[in-house]
Order: sequence, then structure tokens, then C-alpha cells
Amino acid sequence: MMNKFSKRAREIEPSASSEILRYASKPEFINFGGGVPATEALPVDEFSSIFKDLFDDKGPATLQYNTTEGYLPLKEEICKRMNTTGMETSPNQVLITTGAMQALDLTGKLFINEGDTILCEGPTFFSAIDIFDVYGANIVEVEMDSNGMIIEELEKQLKKHPETKAIYALPDFQNPSGRTMTLERRKRLIELANIFDVLVIEDDPYGSLRYEGEELPPLKYFDTEGRVIYISTFSKIVAPGLRLGWLYVDEAFMSKFIALKELADMHTNVISQMAMAEFLENYGIEAHIQKVKSLYKERLTIMLEQIEKFFPKEISYTKPEGGLFIWLDLPDYLDSNKLLDECLKTNVYFLTSYQFSPSGTLRNSFRLNFSNMPEERIIEGIKRIGEVLHRKIKEYNKSN
Amino acid sequence: MMNKFSKRAREIEPSASSEILRYASKPEFINFGGGVPATEALPVDEFSSIFKDLFDDKGPATLQYNTTEGYLPLKEEICKRMNTTGMETSPNQVLITTGAMQALDLTGKLFINEGDTILCEGPTFFSAIDIFDVYGANIVEVEMDSNGMIIEELEKQLKKHPETKAIYALPDFQNPSGRTMTLERRKRLIELANIFDVLVIEDDPYGSLRYEGEELPPLKYFDTEGRVIYISTFSKIVAPGLRLGWLYVDEAFMSKFIALKELADMHTNVISQMAMAEFLENYGIEAHIQKVKSLYKERLTIMLEQIEKFFPKEISYTKPEGGLFIWLDLPDYLDSNKLLDECLKTNVYFLTSYQFSPSGTLRNSFRLNFSNMPEERIIEGIKRIGEVLHRKIKEYNKSN
Repeated sequence: MMNKFSKRAREIEPSASSEILRYASKPEFINFGGGVPATEALPVDEFSSIFKDLFDDKGPATLQYNTTEGYLPLKEEICKRMNTTGMETSPNQVLITTGAMQALDLTGKLFINEGDTILCEGPTFFSAIDIFDVYGANIVEVEMDSNGMIIEELEKQLKKHPETKAIYALPDFQNPSGRTMTLERRKRLIELANIFDVLVIEDDPYGSLRYEGEELPPLKYFDTEGRVIYISTFSKIVAPGLRLGWLYVDEAFMSKFIALKELADMHTNVISQMAMAEFLENYGIEAHIQKVKSLYKERLTIMLEQIEKFFPKEISYTKPEGGLFIWLDLPDYLDSNKLLDECLKTNVYFLTSYQFSPSGTLRNSFRLNFSNMPEERIIEGIKRIGEVLHRKIKEYNKSN
Repeated sequence: MMNKFSKRAREIEPSASSEILRYASKPEFINFGGGVPATEALPVDEFSSIFKDLFDDKGPATLQYNTTEGYLPLKEEICKRMNTTGMETSPNQVLITTGAMQALDLTGKLFINEGDTILCEGPTFFSAIDIFDVYGANIVEVEMDSNGMIIEELEKQLKKHPETKAIYALPDFQNPSGRTMTLERRKRLIELANIFDVLVIEDDPYGSLRYEGEELPPLKYFDTEGRVIYISTFSKIVAPGLRLGWLYVDEAFMSKFIALKELADMHTNVISQMAMAEFLENYGIEAHIQKVKSLYKERLTIMLEQIEKFFPKEISYTKPEGGLFIWLDLPDYLDSNKLLDECLKTNVYFLTSYQFSPSGTLRNSFRLNFSNMPEERIIEGIKRIGEVLHRKIKEYNKSN
């Protein structure tokens, strides 16, 4: 029956996400794999309290069909938060999605034709790449430096690929590199998008998680022509299990997005939307985010200290100002997948550059998540990776 | 920016579902439109009670990421229920989806190539058709009679369309016709699928809602070759707002479905899955379904009585043994969209055959939902439609 698969699905297999979720269920593992929030930071008491009244307050509407666009009070709360950063969002530009993943999927479905090129940061988020790939995109990586996507490289690729449909970018605390695009580059990226008449898919799951430095406006802020599809989520700042994300787009795109959302899952889970609206309105979302940020900043600081202490000097790494990830570069002679194999034997898990490189050219880097593990496990985990690294480098030096 | 849309999305616009949801929010309308459960039948008290303990019992797992396949206790409860009808389902053949709509979407994405033919009942469920269409399918209607899809017609179309990928069918209380496929035809449909080596997409949202007659096994029951994709949902028997459906498929398909589900929305909403598992296990799902069935049977009986009483003898209609819909045929000279226009003026809403006919050939039929409106509004609504019908027929007779 396997010959029945569509062309678009023939290559697809469960990705690193499934693997991450599998390792997450093994408590013996020190898990630096997923972009998973700290369990201690999930607002369980708050949602417990919200749900105690929800069914009395909202009645049967909790369980009945609702509109495809999303629950209006939640859309209004989202706009309020976004507009504090200088945006001018209105609820009819917002579509509630079943997580940011669905927002990426709807975007791919709405815009990508077989053979369209999508320019993305190299390395980049593997699921976005898989989604675009399913819709037939040709994925081209644009080189990054510590200031994010290099704009001269972007321009080069735009010239080389006139069939480009969109630039996919994560400007804040990029996944997996942790790097942030400078203000100047944001403006220039939008200028180039205007000149070359391409869309911009801005993926912003971590923007609210800045631990130091100055907040920067999203790409969407500079968009005067309605070409930026802005995507965000509550998964990293509140609770991933509720699967609540959103799209913020030009109104002209909205009816198409609604049509495709309807055919994807009719509408987003109602009680979760109602509960999130209540959480945002009456439970002090900003205080909650402060709490999350101070915990993650602590964990980032500890992880960086331990890396400094335990890793060989041959390893270089990013020092992110926010988000969930540190990105580490190995010497050329060390393969990240081989490193992972050794580390798995000591019950430490992380993702390697193979998973973030559509072209398969990045072999010597890996990503560490610092949000999900408590202090003592971060210390222990980094120590174990450090031991493997020292041994590997020693072995190499011996034989060369 | 409109020239950026993908080919697959160029034609798509919000469908009847969006319209249904819009009319549902207008209380002045007598709404026979959607397949919407009775608000009174939603188990609000039960879910309120379940959620009072859920966060204490399950802790942070309520809000954290979970597996893409779905919450195991819910999958086990689904298998238990399905296996009482003679099936031999195991949890690793079940994928929890964000409503049955997502199950249809994943099925389309996994199997349909541009130009594949999908054979379906004529008339059939518009959203399924739209989904298959987005993936490039060629939709061919197979004629029905009161016993469901006519098997000789199916065979004819299978011969005529060697490029057929799948047969899409709703064997129980079909949407929109309310008709049920006989046991004999079910067996023969599977035989033909085997002979012509095509898949079967079995859509079964209403199977549990039988008000009279004998229960029939689903098509999947006769499937010895793993070619039936069975889809069902809790939307019609428990609560649509929770967006919980499932796929039951051959294990060989499962890893592909999981991969595509991951790229669609990572996993289904966690608290809703946990709450539904608890509802199935400890709140007497069968008693709940009995209650729902007795209410819907009452409403169906009333609607049929009123149609008998108020509609002109020129109108023929189905007398379904279950489900949510009655299907009515007008004389050739009456167009269903024109009928609807007149009825909307009297604040009565329903769907016409235009929406259920991919070929656009069905112009003289309409669908009435009987589950959502209380008795007095059913009586009033049918009276109003009856008045319009009498007037229309009189006008026609006068001028001919």
C-alpha cells in the first residue's frame, strides 16, 4: 500500500520533534534537546483557578463550535500586547492558530508552489523547512554571522533566485543559533523584500524572552506593503500543551487564511482560547513572563559558566541575549552526530547541526537548550559533554 | 500581493462552514444549517467537574508538550469503544487529531497527487471535497439511491478512472443525504477497492447516532488489506469545541501520519485529551450518548411530522435512521438557492445542494439539520419554509 503515498509525503518521516518528545519522557536523560519550557514555570495553579470558573461563566459555549478566526477576546488581548511595542494591530488582522506550527503550515499551503524558493537563515528551524518542503519549496540557506542573516548574502541569493517566494527568518534569538538580527539589518531586509517583491515569513516564538540588551521591533514593524506574515505563539511564554499561536497579517490575506484554517481543523480549541484570554486579562501576563525570564536567565548564565569551565578551548559558542538556545561550533574534525552518539551513552541528549541544515552542509555544530533542565542537571550535563569533548580532541591530537 | 498565492489556494474561499458559524451567532435566525449538536446536550456540568480536579491530578503535564500520536489513555478508551463493535483496534493504530477535519486534511496531504481521482457520493460533505481539491484531486461523484452509493455506478467509475486514488464515503447517515449504505453494499465496496487497488476514506462522524434499525459494521470492519482510512470524531456525540477526532489506520501508515501531524500542529491540545479520556472512562459515555440520541430522535420525529404537515406534496425527502440531517428534493423547476433566498427573508437558514455537489449538477435539493434547534423553533421554521414552498409552487403553476 506504500505506493499510494503522495509525492509530497514520500520522503517525510517523523522529525527531531518526535525524537525530542521521546527523550523528554525518559527521566534518566539530561535533556538539552527541545525548546521546551521549564516544567516549574508552567502556570498550573493559575489555569487550575481559571478553569474552576470557566464552565460556569461561559456555559455551553465552552464546548460548542466557535468561529474559525478565533475567540475575539483572545485576539483583542494579543493586539493589546503587540501594540505596546509600537505596532498597530487590530483583531481582524489576527488569526488564532493551533500553535505556531499550524501558522507555518497554513502559510506554506497558501503561498508555496512547487519550485518556489524560500530563503532562510542557515542554520534554521527544521520543522519550518519540512513544512515548506512538503509544499514543494526549494530551500536556500543564507549565511549568518553573530548579527543574524548577512544582508549582502541575502541580496546575492535574491538575485540568484528570481523564483524566490519568501524570506523565512527568526530575527530574535534565532532557532537554533540564539543570534539576534540587528535593527539595521531588519530595515534592510524589508527594503530588499520590497525591491525584489518577495514575502517575509517572520517566526517570532521567543521575542518576549529577552534577558539583556535592548528590545528590537519585529520585521513586521517596518512592513509598509503588507508583505510580512508575522507568526508567534504562547508555547514558550505560557504553555505549549494548549497549542495556541497566531498569525498577524495584512487584512487582504485574511479570508484565504481563514478558508485554509477551516479546512485544517475548523477552529482552535475553544476552552484553551477562553482560558488564555482570561489569563492575559486578569492574571498579570507581564509578571508571569518576568518570572519565566528570570528563571531562564539564571539557567543560561549557569550553562554558559559551565561551558566556560568544562569545555575545551577549541569549542566556540554564542552568548544569546534571550530565547532558549546556545549554539556551539566544534573543530572541523569533530562531527556533531558522532559527538551526540557518545553523549547519549552518558544519558545526555541534544540536537546536532545536521537537523538544522537543509543543505546538509553543517556538520560540526550543535544546539543546547537551557530552559528545561534544573541547575544541578545543567551542571552535570555540561560536565559530561565536556568529558566526551576532551576525550575526542585528545584522541584526534594523538592520531595526527 | 494577491499574485503571491499558491495555485492550490487561488480558488479557495471560506466555505459554507464559515457561513454556518456566522448564522449560528444570530439568535433571530432559525438555524437548520450546520451539523451542530444541541446546546442543551453538551455535557457542561460533567466537564466542569472533570476540570475541577484535572490540574491537581495531572500537574504540569496538563500544560507541557505531549506526544504527536496522542494521549495514550484517550487512545485506549477509543479502542475499547470501537472494539465493542467487533473491530480489533489497538492504540498504535490510532492517531488523535484536532477534529475529524484534520484527519481528512492529513489524509489528503498523505495520499493525493495532482490529478488523482477521488470517487465520492453525490451529494457529499463539502469540506472534504475542498480539502481533496486543495491537494489537486479530481472529484467524481458516484450516484446514490436510498441505500447509499450505487455499487454498479461505483464500478463503472472505477473502470472509467484508472487514476483513482481513493473512494471517499460516509456509510452511516450520510452528510448531507442522511442515507445509510446497506451491509451488502459495504462488503461489495471493499471488494471493489481490493480489485481496483484503491484506498477507502471512511468518514464516520455520526455512526453512534442511530435512532432506529440495526447497527451496521463500518467499512473498516471488512478491510483485510489495510486500505481503509477510518475517521471519526467526538464533535457530534460529546463536544465540537474540544476539537477531538481520530484516525484509525493500518500500522504501516502510522509513521507517515505522525510525521504530517507533527508538521500540522505538533500534537493535539493536551487538557482536552485528558478531560475526554476521563469523561469516557468515568462519566458513562454510553449513558450520555443515549441521552443525546433520545433528544435528536425526538427532534427528527417532530421535523418529519411538520414537513409532512406543512410541505407541498411535490417535495420528497429522506427519513434517516440516524445522524443529523434530512435531505429534501424539490421539483425540477425550483432552484434551491432561490428557495434559500426567500427563506432567509423569513429568518430561516439551511444549506442547499449547490454546496454539496462538486460537479454543480445538483440544484434542486436542500439539507435540513434537526439536532440544533428546540422543538418550537423546528415547528416554526418548517412552517415558514412550507409557506415559501407553497407560494413558489403556486407561482410556477400560475405561469405555466
